[in-house]
Amino acid sequence: MHSLRKYLYSILETSAGKRRGASLVFNLTLSSIITLNALAIVLHTVPEYNRRFARLFYDFELFSVIFFTAEYWLRVWVCVENEKYHHPFWGRLKYVFSTAAIIDFLAIFPFYFSLFATDLAIVRILRLFRIFRLFRISRYSHAFRMIQSVVSDKKEELILSTTLVVFMLIIVSSVMYYVEHTAQPDQFSSIPATMWWGVTAMTTVGYGDIHPITPLGKLLGGISAIAGIGLFALPTGILVSGFNEHIRNRKGHNRRVCPHCGKEI
Amino acid sequence: MHSLRKYLYSILETSAGKRRGASLVFNLTLSSIITLNALAIVLHTVPEYNRRFARLFYDFELFSVIFFTAEYWLRVWVCVENEKYHHPFWGRLKYVFSTAAIIDFLAIFPFYFSLFATDLAIVRILRLFRIFRLFRISRYSHAFRMIQSVVSDKKEELILSTTLVVFMLIIVSSVMYYVEHTAQPDQFSSIPATMWWGVTAMTTVGYGDIHPITPLGKLLGGISAIAGIGLFALPTGILVSGFNEHIRNRKGHNRRVCPHCGKEI
Amino acid sequence: MHSLRKYLYSILETSAGKRRGASLVFNLTLSSIITLNALAIVLHTVPEYNRRFARLFYDFELFSVIFFTAEYWLRVWVCVENEKYHHPFWGRLKYVFSTAAIIDFLAIFPFYFSLFATDLAIVRILRLFRIFRLFRISRYSHAFRMIQSVVSDKKEELILSTTLVVFMLIIVSSVMYYVEHTAQPDQFSSIPATMWWGVTAMTTVGYGDIHPITPLGKLLGGISAIAGIGLFALPTGILVSGFNEHIRNRKGHNRRVCPHCGKEI
Amino acid sequence: MHSLRKYLYSILETSAGKRRGASLVFNLTLSSIITLNALAIVLHTVPEYNRRFARLFYDFELFSVIFFTAEYWLRVWVCVENEKYHHPFWGRLKYVFSTAAIIDFLAIFPFYFSLFATDLAIVRILRLFRIFRLFRISRYSHAFRMIQSVVSDKKEELILSTTLVVFMLIIVSSVMYYVEHTAQPDQFSSIPATMWWGVTAMTTVGYGDIHPITPLGKLLGGISAIAGIGLFALPTGILVSGFNEHIRNRKGHNRRVCPHCGKEI
Repeated sequence: MHSLRKYLYSILETSAGKRRGASLVFNLTLSSIITLNALAIVLHTVPEYNRRFARLFYDFELFSVIFFTAEYWLRVWVCVENEKYHHPFWGRLKYVFSTAAIIDFLAIFPFYFSLFATDLAIVRILRLFRIFRLFRISRYSHAFRMIQSVVSDKKEELILSTTLVVFMLIIVSSVMYYVEHTAQPDQFSSIPATMWWGVTAMTTVGYGDIHPITPLGKLLGGISAIAGIGLFALPTGILVSGFNEHIRNRKGHNRRVCPHCGKEI
Repeated sequence: MHSLRKYLYSILETSAGKRRGASLVFNLTLSSIITLNALAIVLHTVPEYNRRFARLFYDFELFSVIFFTAEYWLRVWVCVENEKYHHPFWGRLKYVFSTAAIIDFLAIFPFYFSLFATDLAIVRILRLFRIFRLFRISRYSHAFRMIQSVVSDKKEELILSTTLVVFMLIIVSSVMYYVEHTAQPDQFSSIPATMWWGVTAMTTVGYGDIHPITPLGKLLGGISAIAGIGLFALPTGILVSGFNEHIRNRKGHNRRVCPHCGKEI
Repeated sequence: MHSLRKYLYSILETSAGKRRGASLVFNLTLSSIITLNALAIVLHTVPEYNRRFARLFYDFELFSVIFFTAEYWLRVWVCVENEKYHHPFWGRLKYVFSTAAIIDFLAIFPFYFSLFATDLAIVRILRLFRIFRLFRISRYSHAFRMIQSVVSDKKEELILSTTLVVFMLIIVSSVMYYVEHTAQPDQFSSIPATMWWGVTAMTTVGYGDIHPITPLGKLLGGISAIAGIGLFALPTGILVSGFNEHIRNRKGHNRRVCPHCGKEI
Repeated sequence: MHSLRKYLYSILETSAGKRRGASLVFNLTLSSIITLNALAIVLHTVPEYNRRFARLFYDFELFSVIFFTAEYWLRVWVCVENEKYHHPFWGRLKYVFSTAAIIDFLAIFPFYFSLFATDLAIVRILRLFRIFRLFRISRYSHAFRMIQSVVSDKKEELILSTTLVVFMLIIVSSVMYYVEHTAQPDQFSSIPATMWWGVTAMTTVGYGDIHPITPLGKLLGGISAIAGIGLFALPTGILVSGFNEHIRNRKGHNRRVCPHCGKEI
């Protein structure tokens, strides 16, 4: 029993990059099922496919939930092999409330809940929860560990620049509201409504559903576009440079030399 | 009296990062009131909320103005503790005309003025002045000091690139006006009107309310889009790189020490 | 016979930069014909030009195909001069399946195929194949070798960031579908349809044919625009920095020499 | 006579940064007149201003032309003081065909030509030529010398990336034309018309006047948006990094240290 648990633990939890044999097979299977789930979630909303392949979607959903449920309970059972969760009860409870386990739980729980739900609105919202199955892939992908570490490296800069973005948005939208409200009371109906213009203008998306028409509004819109895109580009610039630094570090390109003693630092 | 003034001064004006006890409590209270004011300014323009919470908005406005007025007079009273403003009269006058005090004044003055204003148009404009309350937060936020120092560091580059942007805008809009005016006399009615197209095209916002339709206009629009976004991206690029440099400097990455000889590199 | 083959090989296959005499003349002729083909492909779709210059387009097409066909067979004949393809039969077969030869073949084959095709739909698709003639220019252009080497240098980063882009797109579009579907069942008809919104929003193109209208949809659209453009800008940022590095390397800026001690730094 | 010519030359042609006395006064006057001309060119197209200030615009135009004409002949007269143009006849002829003199000529010639032109269409085009007066400011502005030197530094990269942009545009537009033409024969009427979509999509302007509607067109549009903005951002990225390098060099931030001998390089 103990050796079986140890064996299953080694299959389920071996860290990426060291997987071999049964562990590799299991993880490739799991990755494939998650990818197929992503495809099913996206395609079942197309009315035509939903009608034609209704049975297939339902069967695959059932199969996925059974597979993920079995996997969830196995993980809860074997997690005590990990030193962090070694206590039979408290360790497992601690595991159940870890981020990874919560994502695993949210990926299956809506199905069981929807069996008892009679309200269609609730069933719809529960379906949305299935996209948590996609987040499960983050455990296997190098890209997510990288973005996580970039965000945590640049946390301070991202908070600073987001503060500036929000402040700029409030100021510009408030002024624009007072300038354009009289000319377009339906479009610029309130400051929150004007903030939608602010976001689309300063991210340079510009759908065209809302834009200034008065000369003063256009002048303000022009100035705030030139000034604002600089601020709104800050988070983007920070992310890009963080990503570049991360890759440079990992590749070891950063080898610099001390100007005083000439040794590598 | 003197020691009370000194005590109040220490509460009101201690620089951020060194606040403790009463000073910290006061500044957190003030920050909260400013944030709530931002929320109130934004939400009171939503007709539904304005109707439902009219009383709450009015009471909070009254409370804010009384609080800010009291704070303003206290600051004027205690400012003489600062060496820069030590003269009882001229020092206080100098303080009243400092940037921070003017912002504080503009945040409360419209309320008192609107009590006597009977013209609705003026009352509306006075309401807009309330967004100066938001600028008060700049005294407490690290992000604003940073953006200020980035702008002052890169002042020369920003002026240069803004010159180029304005020049490019005038040239491209003038040519486009002569190309498109005959085909779309309502849209491209004058060069200033065409400059609105120029700004939306070269910041890549592109609302779609105004765009060339003649083949020659589209050719010019395409070429100026490819050439122009480079120039319009200059201020953004300067701001982003200035921001990056500033953070690198502050983190002390430029003052690194060689691990071999211990000297600064 | 052998020396003729050797001579023709030297004319056809001399690597760019070393061309002289007949080889230079031939390659300039070929480049010109390819450029004229690009012009013909683009202009023959303009109904007016197509009507007026129908004869000219047809004659040039015929001339081009004959020229390219002759060139193709000559290349197949002389390719055995290259050590990689020295075997008279297997070497030529290997050459025929090389990337360059396949592009050359795809540039002429549709013409011959269309002689026998009676279905207009197929003839149209075959015409599209003619744009492979443009790719032939890549053999002569420095820019293409550069972009190729940048993409292969940054392959890993591009795959990583594309993964993040696709993941972000699926998550954001799925949530937006459930938020906006009820309000705009025609626009946000399915998750794949919503992904079109996702791409236009997060690349900041924003055509305006599809955008959220509910307050919750606008809030989600605003947040995902600010967060998403950072991720969608990653491939762009990687390409730009790869391009910069490549040019710096090629210019030998990384192989600088110290003016004091003469060593490479 | 000779000393007058020498004196006028010192006033007219002293390089910026060394101007004093009469030279400074003259150049400030000239800069002001050019700036006022820019304003006049822009504002006289606004029907309201044109009507109201018709007389003022005409008088200022007359004054400007007389001033610029006098200045032009003075410059031709004194140019022989410069060693490059020292020959009385051939030197002056060489000066007349220098870039600066051609710009000066194009700024005044249309006025004289329009006195004899009776065709309104020609008069309109001649008016457009007046924007050459704006280019005259480039002689006085630091920003223009900087952009010129950045463009000439990065000439090769800009040509390379523009080649890639044009190639990408032709390929993507050709494929999109064959995909969307049947569904939207009016919008995607020919490949040149589709290239307008290509430019607005890949510069991320996205006016919304033309966009794919078929699923295949949207898929292609999405992929080419993600891939294409990377290429279209290359010229922008090159310009921004060239601008940054230029400023760094000018500020002397580039001081690096040799790792072998420790001296500054």
